[in-house]
Amino acid sequence: MKFSFKNDYSEGCHPNILQALLQYNLDQQAGYGDDEYSLKAKELIKARINKKDSDVYFVSGGTQANLIVISSILKPYQCAISASTGHILNNETGAIEATGHKILSIETEDGKLRPSDIIPVLENHKNVPHQVMPKLVYISNSTELGTIYKAKELEELSEFCKQNRLYLFMDGARLGHGLTSEISDLTLERVAELTDVFYLGGTKNGALIGEAIVINNPDLQEDFGFNIKQKGALLAKGRLLGIQFLELMKNDLYFDLAKHANQQAMKIKNALQNKGVNFLADTYTNQIFPIVTNKLIEVLSESFEFYVWKKIDEEFSAIRLITSWNTSDDAVNRFIEIIRKEL
Amino acid sequence: MKFSFKNDYSEGCHPNILQALLQYNLDQQAGYGDDEYSLKAKELIKARINKKDSDVYFVSGGTQANLIVISSILKPYQCAISASTGHILNNETGAIEATGHKILSIETEDGKLRPSDIIPVLENHKNVPHQVMPKLVYISNSTELGTIYKAKELEELSEFCKQNRLYLFMDGARLGHGLTSEISDLTLERVAELTDVFYLGGTKNGALIGEAIVINNPDLQEDFGFNIKQKGALLAKGRLLGIQFLELMKNDLYFDLAKHANQQAMKIKNALQNKGVNFLADTYTNQIFPIVTNKLIEVLSESFEFYVWKKIDEEFSAIRLITSWNTSDDAVNRFIEIIRKEL
Amino acid sequence: MKFSFKNDYSEGCHPNILQALLQYNLDQQAGYGDDEYSLKAKELIKARINKKDSDVYFVSGGTQANLIVISSILKPYQCAISASTGHILNNETGAIEATGHKILSIETEDGKLRPSDIIPVLENHKNVPHQVMPKLVYISNSTELGTIYKAKELEELSEFCKQNRLYLFMDGARLGHGLTSEISDLTLERVAELTDVFYLGGTKNGALIGEAIVINNPDLQEDFGFNIKQKGALLAKGRLLGIQFLELMKNDLYFDLAKHANQQAMKIKNALQNKGVNFLADTYTNQIFPIVTNKLIEVLSESFEFYVWKKIDEEFSAIRLITSWNTSDDAVNRFIEIIRKEL
Amino acid sequence: MKFSFKNDYSEGCHPNILQALLQYNLDQQAGYGDDEYSLKAKELIKARINKKDSDVYFVSGGTQANLIVISSILKPYQCAISASTGHILNNETGAIEATGHKILSIETEDGKLRPSDIIPVLENHKNVPHQVMPKLVYISNSTELGTIYKAKELEELSEFCKQNRLYLFMDGARLGHGLTSEISDLTLERVAELTDVFYLGGTKNGALIGEAIVINNPDLQEDFGFNIKQKGALLAKGRLLGIQFLELMKNDLYFDLAKHANQQAMKIKNALQNKGVNFLADTYTNQIFPIVTNKLIEVLSESFEFYVWKKIDEEFSAIRLITSWNTSDDAVNRFIEIIRKEL
Repeated sequence: MKFSFKNDYSEGCHPNILQALLQYNLDQQAGYGDDEYSLKAKELIKARINKKDSDVYFVSGGTQANLIVISSILKPYQCAISASTGHILNNETGAIEATGHKILSIETEDGKLRPSDIIPVLENHKNVPHQVMPKLVYISNSTELGTIYKAKELEELSEFCKQNRLYLFMDGARLGHGLTSEISDLTLERVAELTDVFYLGGTKNGALIGEAIVINNPDLQEDFGFNIKQKGALLAKGRLLGIQFLELMKNDLYFDLAKHANQQAMKIKNALQNKGVNFLADTYTNQIFPIVTNKLIEVLSESFEFYVWKKIDEEFSAIRLITSWNTSDDAVNRFIEIIRKEL
Repeated sequence: MKFSFKNDYSEGCHPNILQALLQYNLDQQAGYGDDEYSLKAKELIKARINKKDSDVYFVSGGTQANLIVISSILKPYQCAISASTGHILNNETGAIEATGHKILSIETEDGKLRPSDIIPVLENHKNVPHQVMPKLVYISNSTELGTIYKAKELEELSEFCKQNRLYLFMDGARLGHGLTSEISDLTLERVAELTDVFYLGGTKNGALIGEAIVINNPDLQEDFGFNIKQKGALLAKGRLLGIQFLELMKNDLYFDLAKHANQQAMKIKNALQNKGVNFLADTYTNQIFPIVTNKLIEVLSESFEFYVWKKIDEEFSAIRLITSWNTSDDAVNRFIEIIRKEL
Repeated sequence: MKFSFKNDYSEGCHPNILQALLQYNLDQQAGYGDDEYSLKAKELIKARINKKDSDVYFVSGGTQANLIVISSILKPYQCAISASTGHILNNETGAIEATGHKILSIETEDGKLRPSDIIPVLENHKNVPHQVMPKLVYISNSTELGTIYKAKELEELSEFCKQNRLYLFMDGARLGHGLTSEISDLTLERVAELTDVFYLGGTKNGALIGEAIVINNPDLQEDFGFNIKQKGALLAKGRLLGIQFLELMKNDLYFDLAKHANQQAMKIKNALQNKGVNFLADTYTNQIFPIVTNKLIEVLSESFEFYVWKKIDEEFSAIRLITSWNTSDDAVNRFIEIIRKEL
Repeated sequence: MKFSFKNDYSEGCHPNILQALLQYNLDQQAGYGDDEYSLKAKELIKARINKKDSDVYFVSGGTQANLIVISSILKPYQCAISASTGHILNNETGAIEATGHKILSIETEDGKLRPSDIIPVLENHKNVPHQVMPKLVYISNSTELGTIYKAKELEELSEFCKQNRLYLFMDGARLGHGLTSEISDLTLERVAELTDVFYLGGTKNGALIGEAIVINNPDLQEDFGFNIKQKGALLAKGRLLGIQFLELMKNDLYFDLAKHANQQAMKIKNALQNKGVNFLADTYTNQIFPIVTNKLIEVLSESFEFYVWKKIDEEFSAIRLITSWNTSDDAVNRFIEIIRKEL
């Protein structure tokens, strides 16, 4: 059986979660998220971000979180702005457009948006009422390319959005990885201060399912629960989501898991760099994109699964390796061993 | 702690499911429903309905199943027909309309639709193109009132739909309960033969989450998976759904659980009937609606939770009692004891 | 050639309109409603309702007006309330639902809504977040049954809506007829004071096309023009709408035309009443519903076109007669002559 | 009063149309497009394209035509493909996305799509079911840049679409101009053979309002009328559209008007070329984009209105000049005179 570096959702969940599901299994609880585990988990998150007035909602997955948040915020004639690599643009089967809203795509090198990227889009959308009105900036941290926002970058973007009456929404499917990157100087508290809405992704960081949507802007909080239900995202047994986030938030397990994933990726990255390997993007999270020879790819493929991401030339291709909360030292070491032997 | 008869999703899941989740937890699997558990569970369901050409998809919950199925079938100008008690009409926050489709409501006594209910609706929708075109008949079995379709009733409805070019979709949130009712003569195989689409509900019958959508009509199968993803219902860790249905379908556990729930309800029903109590509806599944005195309600409320469903007069009200796969003999006996003592 | 009493849009438009279209035809004007005729017509309407802060927009027809107004006001989880006879419920091919919003239907005798009709609907929609939130009350004046709102009725409804945070929207496809009815004590100024949004219908009152949407509630005015364009309702040659309303508003031509239509209907009504004929509804506008014998229907059908509305018994049926701004004395007299002769 | 070259919808309509509106004004006709003028106009169009099995529908404007056609064809998970200059992408306030469908944008030099432009998009959309499915190719003729499709180009594109199961839809807001261009070798009959749907634009070619949607593919014809009504595009007095197209189709007036507009533009183009002026695009229809000095722009602006389209450098800018069915020789000559004098 080959070990897979294809993604960070190949395994089940952290054992603590299963333990808690077992422990509480036969307790009768209120449905639809009013169970005591969900209520406690929400309190833990609000305490952790130090914003008792934020609202927290749990949903199953990232596409669901994105479509519910965006469609709840925008008026029919308003649209979202995203980097061209954004998950909502490429990997959600038009889920946002299916709720009636256009997404304006901005080409960027590193998957991140800066005010200077957005300014021309605003300039080009002033032909009222013949064009959609840009109203929400969608970013991811870490991004789909594994890059991250530094505190100063997010501060500038947040300030820019406020000045231009744009909402800032952070897709945090890999927020744990973004914040625990060795080069990150951003904190969860700061994310909560600087965004209107963000979510903490569980699915890619040790949960079975689950993203925690956090609404910081009071204007966007009113009646939000209706949207969850209408889009089919309100679980009758909300306890399933509550118990998971309860466990993940205890003692910052969430961040420990993400940090582990990052560290395993960095070990491989360092091993590759030591051999002079170049990378498609300069990442410090759990996604790395080394450019290696087709021959090495062949050898690695005998023991590991991963995506060949992009052909560079006749001899070289970039591959994508993703580590997870459960990537073992053993798998990492075996991978490094092959590199050391082959390069 | 009071025992709750409020609904059938107060507890977690059947222990076999948690056991399987533990057992397979760290196996690496393909994402998005291509894991081996999901594939096996789909095969089990297709074998059980004896239709190898049906397609099976797992989603998290009932509202999600309803909105995905209905929006995938109807063209923009087509609408659904439902009994006025239908879940899609009353308890889904306009989820169907949010996908662009009207639901025509038909008043019925018992929550069931018959051809004679539908004929006048078709007659009244012939002012082309000024009215929506009725195209899909939505039914539930068991219904929201706990009633069920007998084989002959479903056959007549199915035949009527075919003759009138209407699709027949059965909401099976409580299909296990409907089919294992002591008065049911309908089988799962027959449901698959007589409907275009139906789903097997897991959430209300021992799963943590999960409904298995079964598409029997080949015309409705093409590209269906896109709809699942677009509506945010495709779980990255599809294993969570696959493992649950794998366990539920083994040795018909699914039907044993439903039968248990029904039997516990019937015990209470019989005890009440023996005391001359009347019921709001004549049900043989896990939902009963006895009409009792306000005084008895007060006494029962000291030990049990349940909904007071409908005021009948100054002295009497109907209450709703729902039993589940996990309702214990102890709880049932305690309830019956109070009845015997008080009446 | 039979004369038609089938509807009030069988003819073209009032000659003044064609005259103005000819006169201004070759003047170059700004597009998309910024032409000088549209601007003047908007000023005339605002002066006429004595509300200089209202916003006025012209669109082509009633369904378009309804869908744009309602979809611009409601959030995704909110719904409209309408009498069961409402045009949006029965004759718009699900246009409102196609924008994502449910309409709750209320059975009424006379096509009108009163607070007492709405209260139970509000009471039955408190299961947050499992049900849509009622937010907009849709009424028509005159209604689809030809009945009208008296000033006191509209005042009470308006007050009720304010108290319950509901928006009040009046479909004025036949507002001219409603306000010039001999029993009306309501004025256009009062309609503007008591509604959040209403429209003045041109199509059924002497225009070729055109409804003037008037937004009185400042909260609903922001960016409204985007909705017009997005729904495909912004005419490049907005002059076509502007010129028509300019002519209709001059010297209250709009109201004179409606009054004429009403008077012609009342002449026929009186002739029928003098012969002891009964009516399906007690109307004082340009729609009447006399209950006559099948034999009389046969005779009348030799010279006139009209709808047989509803079978009453083996001998009698109600017919619907609609008069227009252009219904001639000659046609009315011929109709009355037959009645006098046959009854 | 300055003469405007800003667009081709500044004036009213061709006098024949007003004459016919006057002539038929008081005839009583059936509503909603069943009037005799509409029926005749449809027959004329079908005869003109030599396809008696095509279906014809009249709507008010281009955005309306685009949104109705595209939303009627695509399933929820399917999307349209357009050149980046496409009207649906830039000038319709997200009208297509508001019906739930994404538009994939392809960068092109000249506003036209070729198979080689589309192939990479298809290649990049094979990650089923995580991406939208491209299903409809949207093109304009003439394009938003004034360029046109030659017969061979349209044949190749049509063939490519068939092979790839894509529908081909031509926006013909300026189809008259496209087909009567001096370099065009395409005929209306050929357009009808090569497209699944196209429309003949009236608004920009001598009508007050009106586009004639022609559905050639029988698979797309069923029940199309419902979509017209649902989107608020079905005029009660459909005669307004029917009469206009009746006049435009008589003796090919439609094409004569477009040809006139093209010729007036070509006169100006030639005058500019004779003075050595360059153009932003090489066009042979009623839109030209000469690159002139800021000084010349200033002089021209004293007598004419037009858009400054794009700054080229400190000294030069491209302007856009649009001529219409009604652009007089006098206006053209005055413009040319200034050019001759100033250059």
